[in-house]
Amino acid sequence: MRIEVLAVGTELLLGQIADTNAAWLGEQLASAGVDSHFHQAVGDNHARIVLALRTALARSEGVVVCGGLGPTHDDITRQAIAEVLGVPLRRDTVIAERIRAAFEAGGRRMPESNLRQADVPDGASTIAQRLGTAPGLVCPVGAKVVYALPGVPYEMMEMFTRGVLPDLRRRQVEAGGGGIIVSRVVRTWGMSESGLGELLAPRIEALDAGGGNPTIALLASGMEGIKVRITAKATEEAAAAALLQAEEEQVRALVGASVFGIDAQTMESAVADCLQVQGRTLGLAESLTGGLVASRLVAVPGASAWFRGSVVSYASEVKRDLLGVPPGPVVSAEAARAMADGARRVLGADIGLAVTGVAGPEPQDGRRPGTVFVAVVTGDAHPVGAELQLPGDRDRVRQYACTSALDLLRRHLSNPG
Amino acid sequence: MRIEVLAVGTELLLGQIADTNAAWLGEQLASAGVDSHFHQAVGDNHARIVLALRTALARSEGVVVCGGLGPTHDDITRQAIAEVLGVPLRRDTVIAERIRAAFEAGGRRMPESNLRQADVPDGASTIAQRLGTAPGLVCPVGAKVVYALPGVPYEMMEMFTRGVLPDLRRRQVEAGGGGIIVSRVVRTWGMSESGLGELLAPRIEALDAGGGNPTIALLASGMEGIKVRITAKATEEAAAAALLQAEEEQVRALVGASVFGIDAQTMESAVADCLQVQGRTLGLAESLTGGLVASRLVAVPGASAWFRGSVVSYASEVKRDLLGVPPGPVVSAEAARAMADGARRVLGADIGLAVTGVAGPEPQDGRRPGTVFVAVVTGDAHPVGAELQLPGDRDRVRQYACTSALDLLRRHLSNPG
Repeated sequence: MRIEVLAVGTELLLGQIADTNAAWLGEQLASAGVDSHFHQAVGDNHARIVLALRTALARSEGVVVCGGLGPTHDDITRQAIAEVLGVPLRRDTVIAERIRAAFEAGGRRMPESNLRQADVPDGASTIAQRLGTAPGLVCPVGAKVVYALPGVPYEMMEMFTRGVLPDLRRRQVEAGGGGIIVSRVVRTWGMSESGLGELLAPRIEALDAGGGNPTIALLASGMEGIKVRITAKATEEAAAAALLQAEEEQVRALVGASVFGIDAQTMESAVADCLQVQGRTLGLAESLTGGLVASRLVAVPGASAWFRGSVVSYASEVKRDLLGVPPGPVVSAEAARAMADGARRVLGADIGLAVTGVAGPEPQDGRRPGTVFVAVVTGDAHPVGAELQLPGDRDRVRQYACTSALDLLRRHLSNPG
Repeated sequence: MRIEVLAVGTELLLGQIADTNAAWLGEQLASAGVDSHFHQAVGDNHARIVLALRTALARSEGVVVCGGLGPTHDDITRQAIAEVLGVPLRRDTVIAERIRAAFEAGGRRMPESNLRQADVPDGASTIAQRLGTAPGLVCPVGAKVVYALPGVPYEMMEMFTRGVLPDLRRRQVEAGGGGIIVSRVVRTWGMSESGLGELLAPRIEALDAGGGNPTIALLASGMEGIKVRITAKATEEAAAAALLQAEEEQVRALVGASVFGIDAQTMESAVADCLQVQGRTLGLAESLTGGLVASRLVAVPGASAWFRGSVVSYASEVKRDLLGVPPGPVVSAEAARAMADGARRVLGADIGLAVTGVAGPEPQDGRRPGTVFVAVVTGDAHPVGAELQLPGDRDRVRQYACTSALDLLRRHLSNPG
C-alpha cells in the first residue's frame, strides 16, 4: 500500500518552519511497512489543496493530510477534502458540544469560528480530539482514503498513532500485505562516498540478485560522515530485526574500523563511550577549530564525568605562553603534539587532544588551506598524530577537522596499538 | 512566476532527515518575489522522479530539484531529467577533468563512478561545482526550466545563490514581471516576538493603510534572534532601495538598541566590527557554552586580529586552577566576573567575556536549568554582568546563552556608559 503525505500551510512554503511532520510520518509509515513514494507541501489555498489531493490520490492509495484543521479563516483543509469527495460538509453536533465544553472548562469565551472544527465531510468518520480542539478525519474515497490530522506536531503524532495507524493496518491486511519494513544506519568516517561504494558494490549486487531484501544505500552527510542504510522487509518484527543484524555484521566486516556508530550515535558519543568505559578524562587544545570540538563534546549527556575543558589557543602567543608550544611554525605536527601535551597538563586531564591547521583562505606557515594536524597525547603510550588535507571553505575545513580529530581519538582509544 | 521545489532522496521519505533544503529554498524564492505553491519530495527511483518532475512542470513554470546528483548508483536525478526532456546524457569532458583534478589535489584515487557527475542532459547548461564534485544543471523545457542542485545543504545554498537566482531574475524580467521586489532583514536580539509585534503594530497598520508598500513581517529565528523583514516593490532598483532604506530607519527608530545587524550580519560579526574599530582584543571563559561562543567568533573572517582565544573551563577545577575563580558556587555572578577576569589575564586580552550557567536537565548550585550568568571585564570600566533565565532544552539554553553573551558585549562596546 502506498500512502502520500500532504502538509498544508503557507508557512511551510515560505520556509518559516521546516516540515518535521512529514519526516516523522515518513518514519512511522516505513516502520509500519507502508510505502510512501511522494510527499507534498501546499499553501492555505483552496484550489491548490484540491489539486494536491487529486495528484496524491492519482498516484497513491491514500493520503495523510496535516494542517489546516484549525478554527481560523485560512484553515480550509475540510472544505478541500469535501470538494475532492464531491460531498457537502455537515456540522457534527457532538463534536461542536465537545469544543464548547473545552472552552467552558478553561473558563474562556468561545469565538463562534471554533465551531467550523465540527464540520465533517459527508461519509467521513472522525478521530476524537484529545490534545487540541479539532478532530481528525478518515475519509474513504472509493477504495482509497484521505486522513486529515492537525498540523501541531504533538497533536498530529498522538492522533496518527491512535486513529490512523490501526485503520492503515486493517487496510493492509485486507489488501493482503501486512509486512514490516525496518532500517538501520551504519555510520562511517574516513572513506570517500565512492570508495565506500566500490567496497560495498559486490555486496549490493549480491543482495539485488538475491531478491533485494535487505537493501543497502549510501548517504553522504557532510560532517556527519557517510551513512550506510540497511532496509529489511519481513512479515514479523523479529525476522526483520534478524535480517538487519546479519546485514550490519556484513557491512562491518567489509568497512572495518571506519564504522563509528549505529543510527543516532554520533562521533562524539562514540568518543564519550570509550572515555567513560576506560575511566579517563580528556582535555583539548584547539586552534583552527576554535572551540568546535569542545562544543560537540559538551553536548553529550554526562560529559562532566570525563571532559575537563579546552584551551582555544587562537593567537600564537596563547599557544606558546599558556600551552608551552616551542617557537616555530604553529601549523605542524610538532606544534599539534606540544598543544596536546600542554592541554593535558594545564587542564589536568589523562588525555590531551589537539587540532591546528589552516582554515584559509590564505596559506599559513607555508601550508595551504585545508592542511590540518591532529595529535593525541596520553601518559602511557606514544603520542599519535595525523596530517590531513581537507576540502572546502573555512567552515567545512573546521567541521571536517573537528570530526577527524574526534575520529583519531576514537580509533586510538578503541585500539591503542 | 511559480517555481516548485522537488527534493530527491529516499532518506527524506523515510524521515531519516528533515527536508531543511525545501524550507531554505522557500524562503529564498519568497524573498526574490517568486511564488512557490507546491513542494514535493520523492525517493531515489527513476520512474517516480520522472512523474514528480512532470507533475511539477504541469502546475508551475519551473522546478528546483535538490539531491541525486552524486556519484553513486542511486544518484539518478540526471537520468530522470534527461527522460523528461526527451534528450540523451552526454559526458562533459571539462567537468570530468575538474573532478579528476579535485581527487588528485586531495591525493586520492578517483573511483571511475565519479565521472557520472560529468553527465549533462543535451541542451542543458551547467553551474560549475565549487564546494562539491557535482555541477548543477540549468535545463530549459520549452519556456519552463528545471534547475538541479546537490542535496548537501551548503553546496545547494552556494549554487542556488550563484547559479539559479540570477537566471530566475532574468526570467522574471522577460516574463514582464519587470517590477523589482527587494527585501531587507533587520535583525534583533533581546525582545520577545510579541513585544516586538506590539511595538511595530502601529507602523505595520500605517503601511497597510497606505497601500502595503513596503511591508513588514516578523520572523522568529531561534538563536538568530527575531528578524524584521521589510519587502518593497518598485519598477526600478533605485526606487526599491530607497523604500527599503527609509523603512529600515523607521524600524531602527522604533526598536532601538535591540537591532544588531542587517541581512546576513550576525551577532558575532557585529561584535567583531566593534572590536576591530576600537583596536581591542578579546579573550573568553566558557563553561556551559563549551566553546560555542569561541567557535562562532572564529568563523568571522579576520578574527585573528582581535580574538585571542577561549578557556573552556568545563570542570570546576579548571575554573579555579587556571582562571583563578575563588571557592564557592560556579553558577553565580561572582564566578562569571572572576572567569572573565581570568580569561583576560591568562589569554593576554584587553577584554574578558565569560559565560557560566546551568544547561540542565538537573539544577546546579541551587540554580534551575536555564539560569545563565554573563560578565564583561575591561581594564578601563566597571565590569558589567547579566543574569538570564533561558527557555528550552540543553542545546537551546546553550545556543541562547551564546548569543546573549555576545549581545551583552556588543551593547557594552557600542555604549560603554
